Amino acid sequence: MNNSKIKSKIYHIIYGTDTLAGKTFDVALIGFILLSILVVCLESVPNYRTHFLFYFLVLEWILTICFTIEYFLRIYSHPRPLRYITSFYGLIDLLSILPTYLTFFIPGLHYLMTVRIVRLLRIFRILKLTHFIQNAQALKLALQASFHKITVFILAVLSLVLIVGTVIYVVEGPENGFTSIPLSIYWTIVTITTVGYGDITPQTPSGQIISSIVMLMGYAIIAVPTGIVTVELSKTAGAHNYVDSESFNCNQCGQKLNLTANFCSNCGKRVNDLS
Amino acid sequence: MNNSKIKSKIYHIIYGTDTLAGKTFDVALIGFILLSILVVCLESVPNYRTHFLFYFLVLEWILTICFTIEYFLRIYSHPRPLRYITSFYGLIDLLSILPTYLTFFIPGLHYLMTVRIVRLLRIFRILKLTHFIQNAQALKLALQASFHKITVFILAVLSLVLIVGTVIYVVEGPENGFTSIPLSIYWTIVTITTVGYGDITPQTPSGQIISSIVMLMGYAIIAVPTGIVTVELSKTAGAHNYVDSESFNCNQCGQKLNLTANFCSNCGKRVNDLS
Amino acid sequence: MNNSKIKSKIYHIIYGTDTLAGKTFDVALIGFILLSILVVCLESVPNYRTHFLFYFLVLEWILTICFTIEYFLRIYSHPRPLRYITSFYGLIDLLSILPTYLTFFIPGLHYLMTVRIVRLLRIFRILKLTHFIQNAQALKLALQASFHKITVFILAVLSLVLIVGTVIYVVEGPENGFTSIPLSIYWTIVTITTVGYGDITPQTPSGQIISSIVMLMGYAIIAVPTGIVTVELSKTAGAHNYVDSESFNCNQCGQKLNLTANFCSNCGKRVNDLS
Amino acid sequence: MNNSKIKSKIYHIIYGTDTLAGKTFDVALIGFILLSILVVCLESVPNYRTHFLFYFLVLEWILTICFTIEYFLRIYSHPRPLRYITSFYGLIDLLSILPTYLTFFIPGLHYLMTVRIVRLLRIFRILKLTHFIQNAQALKLALQASFHKITVFILAVLSLVLIVGTVIYVVEGPENGFTSIPLSIYWTIVTITTVGYGDITPQTPSGQIISSIVMLMGYAIIAVPTGIVTVELSKTAGAHNYVDSESFNCNQCGQKLNLTANFCSNCGKRVNDLS
Repeated sequence: MNNSKIKSKIYHIIYGTDTLAGKTFDVALIGFILLSILVVCLESVPNYRTHFLFYFLVLEWILTICFTIEYFLRIYSHPRPLRYITSFYGLIDLLSILPTYLTFFIPGLHYLMTVRIVRLLRIFRILKLTHFIQNAQALKLALQASFHKITVFILAVLSLVLIVGTVIYVVEGPENGFTSIPLSIYWTIVTITTVGYGDITPQTPSGQIISSIVMLMGYAIIAVPTGIVTVELSKTAGAHNYVDSESFNCNQCGQKLNLTANFCSNCGKRVNDLS
Repeated sequence: MNNSKIKSKIYHIIYGTDTLAGKTFDVALIGFILLSILVVCLESVPNYRTHFLFYFLVLEWILTICFTIEYFLRIYSHPRPLRYITSFYGLIDLLSILPTYLTFFIPGLHYLMTVRIVRLLRIFRILKLTHFIQNAQALKLALQASFHKITVFILAVLSLVLIVGTVIYVVEGPENGFTSIPLSIYWTIVTITTVGYGDITPQTPSGQIISSIVMLMGYAIIAVPTGIVTVELSKTAGAHNYVDSESFNCNQCGQKLNLTANFCSNCGKRVNDLS
Repeated sequence: MNNSKIKSKIYHIIYGTDTLAGKTFDVALIGFILLSILVVCLESVPNYRTHFLFYFLVLEWILTICFTIEYFLRIYSHPRPLRYITSFYGLIDLLSILPTYLTFFIPGLHYLMTVRIVRLLRIFRILKLTHFIQNAQALKLALQASFHKITVFILAVLSLVLIVGTVIYVVEGPENGFTSIPLSIYWTIVTITTVGYGDITPQTPSGQIISSIVMLMGYAIIAVPTGIVTVELSKTAGAHNYVDSESFNCNQCGQKLNLTANFCSNCGKRVNDLS
Repeated sequence: MNNSKIKSKIYHIIYGTDTLAGKTFDVALIGFILLSILVVCLESVPNYRTHFLFYFLVLEWILTICFTIEYFLRIYSHPRPLRYITSFYGLIDLLSILPTYLTFFIPGLHYLMTVRIVRLLRIFRILKLTHFIQNAQALKLALQASFHKITVFILAVLSLVLIVGTVIYVVEGPENGFTSIPLSIYWTIVTITTVGYGDITPQTPSGQIISSIVMLMGYAIIAVPTGIVTVELSKTAGAHNYVDSESFNCNQCGQKLNLTANFCSNCGKRVNDLS
């Protein structure tokens, strides 16, 4: 087997999903990524770091070396290596392995290790190639269609939050925990989104009245994004059914017809004649 | 009355709902199950356990003996006893009585008693046989239809939660209560679902800004599952309406026709001739 | 003016809304009721009770005497006094004045005074008579139509809550604040409805994982009642438009026509000829 | 250039958006307003006020002088100066600059400075003139249409909250933090809107049972405003679609016609003749 054939074979295994080897590679890669994310998470637990640090390090280095080999194979087998390196997923792949090498040489950069969490994004490349993501298409379309309206909505909420935050800062004041306008805005967001941590709460009766109004407003406001997304989703669902799967037009009178129709419901022309 | 007749009669009382005896048995069984769940709940309250432990034990043994008799009658009267024993509800029935006997012989297993809560599931068998559950059918259909989209949605939320959790862990750090990435992920879920316990809250200004963004995102994100379920429910409802109120049937071929149709779309018969 | 005429006039003022006197009476009564509720609320504030108790008492007695006069006028002017007394609003009227007299004779019954809050319900009688409540009709219809489905939904949530509550009780245990199953069920409801007080929070990692799953489930579950109500509201809106206000049928061809149509859109017949 | 020409030119720059100068002025003004709001917010942070007060003051005076010049230019160039001064945005413009001058002469009025937050409202004037706001139109229409129903809904929720608040006050009492009826009402709003601060929580079992019912009610209640807004938004969307895609116009009288129409519903002309 010559060099070009090997290259092509590696390319099909790494980038393709139509062969058994390609599918096995994808499933194994997902497993490796999930394992590596689990290591990042568990390593951060103080108790585990004390007892299992050695095992974490060994596992981390094995995974990093695997990902490094994969990275260079991707560069090697890609028809345009430079294009891959500068692409979004190329940079993600680099960011996935760099922190381990960097912290080996510069041991002080502890938090750098958390950058490895970007490995999660590598999963989406694999999902993109499969049929899995097609289920998410309707969702994506509806969210894109409602993006403008949701932006207007978020801007309106932010304005409201800014004004309510200032009012509550004046009413409650620093002595009740509302030490500054930014903190009061943070409290307003916590309240209007109905999260309600309770780390800062109104203490004066007038502050509690304002809070109550804000909460009831938040109750009515939450209806808006829901309404927007529902209408868009329902449009997508409706439009899809209408155009693609349920109707066609009679070529004699232009009447909209059901796919199951044998005759035009308006002029009585046989559907068999239509095409 | 010979053995086979008794068996058949018991079968109709226990498994059937069409006779008065069968209905009475079902209502009595629901009462016994609810009473037994109440005993499990109240027994766990320290104050009640101290004062009324004797009454709880007596009640528990009466109920367990009743359920045991019922269990053996079910085995006896069932046409295929082994099939019943290995069925889902057969195992639930066994799990409902086993803990009481086990804790009698091995007194140390205190928490085993809570397994008795599975008795609740036995109610669903009775409900399944009645007309009650038919009201839940539309709901079930809509949830099944939206299952794939909600799965995609939950996966997207989990990815978001993982990344936000890591970012907040780096920003806030162990000194503000965010002691590990798993705990930070837990905090992110608490925040994005708008639960907001307040046991862990961001203390630094940058942490509060990230929280605010997460909350507003959660506000927009909650719209998605609502939209999905609403559209599915509305589809189910819509299909139903279509049949009942906006259409009539062709009297030649029985085809469902639109109110605006002049000709049957199936057989080409003029609608004017229909009535 | 003889007795019967006076009776009839009083009846029209108290029960009617079509005369100026009747309307004035209703508006004044709403004012009195709201004032009396304000007194009940403010009287409960310790600080106000200490300083303004005398004024509260004077105001309370004036209002109670007014309501008593109104009550006896209602009995006097009603065509069937006994029927009024035993009616829902007759009992509410009695409950509105009784606590003040009772606490005068038996001073110990302090909490009895809060029963006066039922005066609020008297407002709904007045609203019932006006056009105001007609706006609420569509809402009421939709809620009634979705009542069965919401009941099924609440029952399913309660079962889920019972099982999750028991599991978290076993996992966390009394040492982390989950002292009994009923309290754990209370915590589960607090969590699944996204209220999240934070008075009881999971402390163990496994408890936090279970909580996270419960929260994400609550996130998806909240979509269900919203979907149900939206579909019912949309049905009501659609049905209303269709039948009542926007269409009628051509009496020549039965075609559904817009109210603004002059000619039948199907057969060309003039609408003027229709009726 | 004479006085009138200058006046007209200033008018087009300040009030207009169709020239390059006008657009540049608008963008610069939005920048100045956002900067000035940032100053108001950061100035309130104790730490920043200590260290950067001088810079804040300098920036504030520069911005105020700019806004003052703009204010007088608006009066000068407006065709009816008095009408501008007494208009909504004229008063907002005055309120945006007054606090700075007032606190210079009367230094004690510290909280007066927060009134400058109304500068935010000035942004909406600029947005009004652009195409940006057209995206918000559908949202506004839907909210206006659902205003009456949401009012009825809020009134019903308020009544519920008043009664539940009184009940929980009696059940829990001052010894568990429910010191007065208004505070108990505040707690009920915090609970029913699922905010759940946790500053006041039920301590008695009966109080926790009532809370659980309130939370589950809140869970079902939140569906109502969402349903209302969704239906209104979907109506708006539907009406819009109706005009664009499901109808055509009669070429004799211009009447909007359904795709299924054979004759114009306004003038009776055959649709076959239309094209």
